[in-house]
Amino acid sequence: MTTFKAGLVGVTGYTGMELARLLCGHGGLRLVRATSRSDAGRTLDQLFPGLGGLPVGGLTVSQPDVDDLARACELVFLAVPHGTAMDMAAALVERGVRVVDLSADFRIKDPATYAQWYGLEHRHPGLIADAVFGLPELYAPAIRAARLVANPGCYPTSAILGLYPALSRGLAEADGLVVDSKSGATGAGRKAAVGSLFCEVADTFRAYNLGRHRHTPEIEQELSRFVGRDIRVSFNTHLLPINRGILSTCYARLARPATLAEVHAAYADAYADAPWVRVLPQGALPETKNVRGTMFCDIGLVVDPRTDRLIVVSCIDNLCRGASGQALANANLMLGLDPAEGLRLAPLVP
Amino acid sequence: MTTFKAGLVGVTGYTGMELARLLCGHGGLRLVRATSRSDAGRTLDQLFPGLGGLPVGGLTVSQPDVDDLARACELVFLAVPHGTAMDMAAALVERGVRVVDLSADFRIKDPATYAQWYGLEHRHPGLIADAVFGLPELYAPAIRAARLVANPGCYPTSAILGLYPALSRGLAEADGLVVDSKSGATGAGRKAAVGSLFCEVADTFRAYNLGRHRHTPEIEQELSRFVGRDIRVSFNTHLLPINRGILSTCYARLARPATLAEVHAAYADAYADAPWVRVLPQGALPETKNVRGTMFCDIGLVVDPRTDRLIVVSCIDNLCRGASGQALANANLMLGLDPAEGLRLAPLVP
Amino acid sequence: MTTFKAGLVGVTGYTGMELARLLCGHGGLRLVRATSRSDAGRTLDQLFPGLGGLPVGGLTVSQPDVDDLARACELVFLAVPHGTAMDMAAALVERGVRVVDLSADFRIKDPATYAQWYGLEHRHPGLIADAVFGLPELYAPAIRAARLVANPGCYPTSAILGLYPALSRGLAEADGLVVDSKSGATGAGRKAAVGSLFCEVADTFRAYNLGRHRHTPEIEQELSRFVGRDIRVSFNTHLLPINRGILSTCYARLARPATLAEVHAAYADAYADAPWVRVLPQGALPETKNVRGTMFCDIGLVVDPRTDRLIVVSCIDNLCRGASGQALANANLMLGLDPAEGLRLAPLVP
Amino acid sequence: MTTFKAGLVGVTGYTGMELARLLCGHGGLRLVRATSRSDAGRTLDQLFPGLGGLPVGGLTVSQPDVDDLARACELVFLAVPHGTAMDMAAALVERGVRVVDLSADFRIKDPATYAQWYGLEHRHPGLIADAVFGLPELYAPAIRAARLVANPGCYPTSAILGLYPALSRGLAEADGLVVDSKSGATGAGRKAAVGSLFCEVADTFRAYNLGRHRHTPEIEQELSRFVGRDIRVSFNTHLLPINRGILSTCYARLARPATLAEVHAAYADAYADAPWVRVLPQGALPETKNVRGTMFCDIGLVVDPRTDRLIVVSCIDNLCRGASGQALANANLMLGLDPAEGLRLAPLVP
Repeated sequence: MTTFKAGLVGVTGYTGMELARLLCGHGGLRLVRATSRSDAGRTLDQLFPGLGGLPVGGLTVSQPDVDDLARACELVFLAVPHGTAMDMAAALVERGVRVVDLSADFRIKDPATYAQWYGLEHRHPGLIADAVFGLPELYAPAIRAARLVANPGCYPTSAILGLYPALSRGLAEADGLVVDSKSGATGAGRKAAVGSLFCEVADTFRAYNLGRHRHTPEIEQELSRFVGRDIRVSFNTHLLPINRGILSTCYARLARPATLAEVHAAYADAYADAPWVRVLPQGALPETKNVRGTMFCDIGLVVDPRTDRLIVVSCIDNLCRGASGQALANANLMLGLDPAEGLRLAPLVP
Repeated sequence: MTTFKAGLVGVTGYTGMELARLLCGHGGLRLVRATSRSDAGRTLDQLFPGLGGLPVGGLTVSQPDVDDLARACELVFLAVPHGTAMDMAAALVERGVRVVDLSADFRIKDPATYAQWYGLEHRHPGLIADAVFGLPELYAPAIRAARLVANPGCYPTSAILGLYPALSRGLAEADGLVVDSKSGATGAGRKAAVGSLFCEVADTFRAYNLGRHRHTPEIEQELSRFVGRDIRVSFNTHLLPINRGILSTCYARLARPATLAEVHAAYADAYADAPWVRVLPQGALPETKNVRGTMFCDIGLVVDPRTDRLIVVSCIDNLCRGASGQALANANLMLGLDPAEGLRLAPLVP
Repeated sequence: MTTFKAGLVGVTGYTGMELARLLCGHGGLRLVRATSRSDAGRTLDQLFPGLGGLPVGGLTVSQPDVDDLARACELVFLAVPHGTAMDMAAALVERGVRVVDLSADFRIKDPATYAQWYGLEHRHPGLIADAVFGLPELYAPAIRAARLVANPGCYPTSAILGLYPALSRGLAEADGLVVDSKSGATGAGRKAAVGSLFCEVADTFRAYNLGRHRHTPEIEQELSRFVGRDIRVSFNTHLLPINRGILSTCYARLARPATLAEVHAAYADAYADAPWVRVLPQGALPETKNVRGTMFCDIGLVVDPRTDRLIVVSCIDNLCRGASGQALANANLMLGLDPAEGLRLAPLVP
Repeated sequence: MTTFKAGLVGVTGYTGMELARLLCGHGGLRLVRATSRSDAGRTLDQLFPGLGGLPVGGLTVSQPDVDDLARACELVFLAVPHGTAMDMAAALVERGVRVVDLSADFRIKDPATYAQWYGLEHRHPGLIADAVFGLPELYAPAIRAARLVANPGCYPTSAILGLYPALSRGLAEADGLVVDSKSGATGAGRKAAVGSLFCEVADTFRAYNLGRHRHTPEIEQELSRFVGRDIRVSFNTHLLPINRGILSTCYARLARPATLAEVHAAYADAYADAPWVRVLPQGALPETKNVRGTMFCDIGLVVDPRTDRLIVVSCIDNLCRGASGQALANANLMLGLDPAEGLRLAPLVP
């Protein structure tokens, strides 16, 4: 297999850690740069002792430097906050490097919507059109040709995959959708904050950002494509006392009476060629442990004739499928590698 | 204070444990009987070492015996499964003992609905009309006069208290309600079952019984009263990796445009005389730890003008407010004691 | 009951929170001041929503001011870091206010030992002799007369209570002691730090500070008293993914052959008048949940004739018995109140 | 690579699940039989939905049948309880099948010791001498030649690897050893038992079986080999509220004064050719998350001159290194495969 050289900008957060973990088992990408402003000079296994003795563990963290990255790497993953990522992406793309941006900077096609939800004017609006939304099940051909991929958000990955068949095939009404999502604590990142302390998160559960989470416009943008018009979604988030995992319970009205068997067949058909989407058997419901550490999106379906509702439960690992694993899948596609390389992962249960 | 003598049938489960805990700090009720078929002959502190050195710890568990209970007790708590409770309740009421039944046997007013959801014909339908649904905020006068109280289910307590002001005051549409509930693992009881093992529940999250949880008819019965006609609710449950706590996120359409301030004022007014219901300040959302071990029901309100929705987040401790604490409040009312006796509880945080 | 006025300096940490919780149920102490440099001006229930609707919830946090505290309070609890506490304690004692200092500043009788382990010269060495080590089971008479109580550390409380009968009665050899302690995460405090994040602590376990934890000299000081000569202890700490609780497994050589029954009888005798120390039945071992939220110290005893060892397992709630509850017991003693006032607590299980 | 055919007897427990997970990523072993008395007829992914879409997921579970296993498999893993395993092992070995026995049946060389600790007379004592104790770092040559490997216990793996250099090189005194071990809840297996319920294990910590855990003789047998005479160890166990992981804190007296640098060098030398043993840098201590899902044994070293002690902290994943991963390593050796095949695993953090 050809081996490509990859860089990772922002290695100290959980998405950076996860990408480092995944690259330990990848035959076609070699990590040659990992950057951090605060930890340059240390090796990766000094930062993350779990990486000791593994292929990437000995790499020395460097300061982020666009020219150095451009010389050393064929593809760069950006695991830095939105706002920061856009400039780095623009500079790298300009230098001919392929970029997978894990931030939100290039996910929203409409700069005004981006500005409204992120409180920030986009500084490279001309590049937005070039960026491909990196959901492999939906956009693989475009991703293969892309120089810049906007890696989807974790919540949107679960919601969009969960609702795609229902909306694109007209099973569910597009109005009045409710997505009730619950996420593990890695979603809050690795910043020191009182609200993320063990003693503030363990053995408790809370709702947050109801109706105003920044992933809302990303979900609405993609779901609107499926139905051909702009729709609004009530998207609401909760914090789970677990490390990894998102489970989204999606509530829709049935567009017409349908049996569970019919809905299940439509989902199975929609994802027939998508090995990472597991439409569970009728009657089964997903749980986060079954996707832990993997690329799987598990989907459970419920038709409730009492209330004329279709309930879709969609479940992913927010760090792997919802961030770094998906980024790696996009990199595989962009570089012409086997899409599954490094991602044939079995869940760690329990 | 007058001291009444109380019995507890079914002490080995979590609701029995919790009631024993609460009675340690109650000045007007003395536990004189605690029964268990499997553990008779042992003392309570042998069963539950945490009760060592506490007022109830030395009590010897006895076999359940209706005549013995009737002689010894003025009031009996039934913490046994539905189906079993109805016979015991009937026998005790017949003997002139007041009964608080923590099971579902007398919650559903319509025997046919009971039979449909619980798969069981009611053997004492004549007693159902006498039973009062034990939600103190709504039915205190009737509870005071009752000889049999049907203690509400845990999920219904959260959902009914959460939606009562919205529905009774016409703030929300009664059709299309979605209640997305998440419960701690004590809700599954203390039975040895693989699905309840630590390694099956910890660090994971799952949905279960979507659209067909047995608490559905209880919720629909009470919410229907508020709107004066039969309504249906999409009620859906999830298992949290925490010990105690239920958080229900309730989705309704606004019946008419309203500001958060208006909705908040209506809730504050509805619960002005309800010290255990804390309508949180505008912008605040509840979390389970803040009600841990207490009678509080914390309610957070969100008005989302983008989607014309009212979202009510209602949060209780499923064991205390959702079961044994509420049972004690009902006992206080039935016996003419201060309703708050033994229940002035501050949450254990963290 | 006479009601005394109390102040709490440093309310924003977990020990401050816990003291506020306990004072909600105390009949003889009224919290009239709660201070914080960062949160002055907010009410306690704004800081800690769990306190809403409770007696202390409406108190407005103020800036720490010695003169104001001295005017308003008869007793002040110091829940601030070592180094800071000593000056505040000195100033308050000088103004005639009784002080319970939850920091380490007055625990170590030898200023040189303090300086060595805490890296700090004591600025009020003259006050050290006046301070009483606040372990009620051992020093109640002196505590009653004290104007300054040094509230013991959490680990030392478990180790000292665990080994006191064994050493004072000559059951165990004083040399070669090993104390292997495990603590919940509240022990690390409520500071924002990456190492205390949920995702760094949950579902994992680690050792830390082996052989060099600052509680070592405090343990050695007290154990040395029991045997009448200076001894050294191998004291070693680990971080548990739980909120509250310390369990110390203490390893000693038997001083002479002894049966479990003999050792158990000696422990039972030593703690015959100590209602908060529960010497568990022979064969039983403690667990942290059974002391959660309470003053209990549960002790389990093992005699292992294969290795001639006595193993003592000692278990407390680090926040309640190991900090704020013990502070309240000391305040009760200092003020002539019932020592158990506000502390008749049943554990929250599960 | 040659592909061998493997069988797994007892697939429904956690060690069976873990072996199935690991075989998904193994290039030289194909799982052709998985047996269970209770679940025969179902596919593996019906039992464990996490295995859906993975190489082993479609395998149908069969009843255990020695002749069928012997015909179909070149090597069989036994993941059944001790007592049951010995007969199955004997029958399979007799039929020429290589066996890796994950139970304790062939670990103890002395049948009398086995009978004493396991309460069971060994029915195949003649086979014990043929069985090789499957710790690859110590016995790889014998494992390569073995027809029956006794896979070490989880606790013993951590204790033996932790103390091997200290004892074999005379750094530590062999008398008076204390091993204080803490294990995650998967160690208790997947049996329905009240004591293993989430609500009995979460947010709590307890000691159990102090001085009488069945892994004691296995530890003593191996450590005695290192010092050339029979020694006794005080081995003591605790239950952690985590899924996977064992951390053993081992206390020894230094045999002679030594610096940490000297001890560290000796450990590094002892494990220079052992890629799965990571002797951590001086000053670093292990934690379970860094070995999660892997074969690593992380060792941290502390020399405490105050107490003349060497403290060794040894940490493994009890399911992978302590059971199924080690079994797979043994199988690799027995079959002449690359010892690391299927086991180049990076830890899942967090």
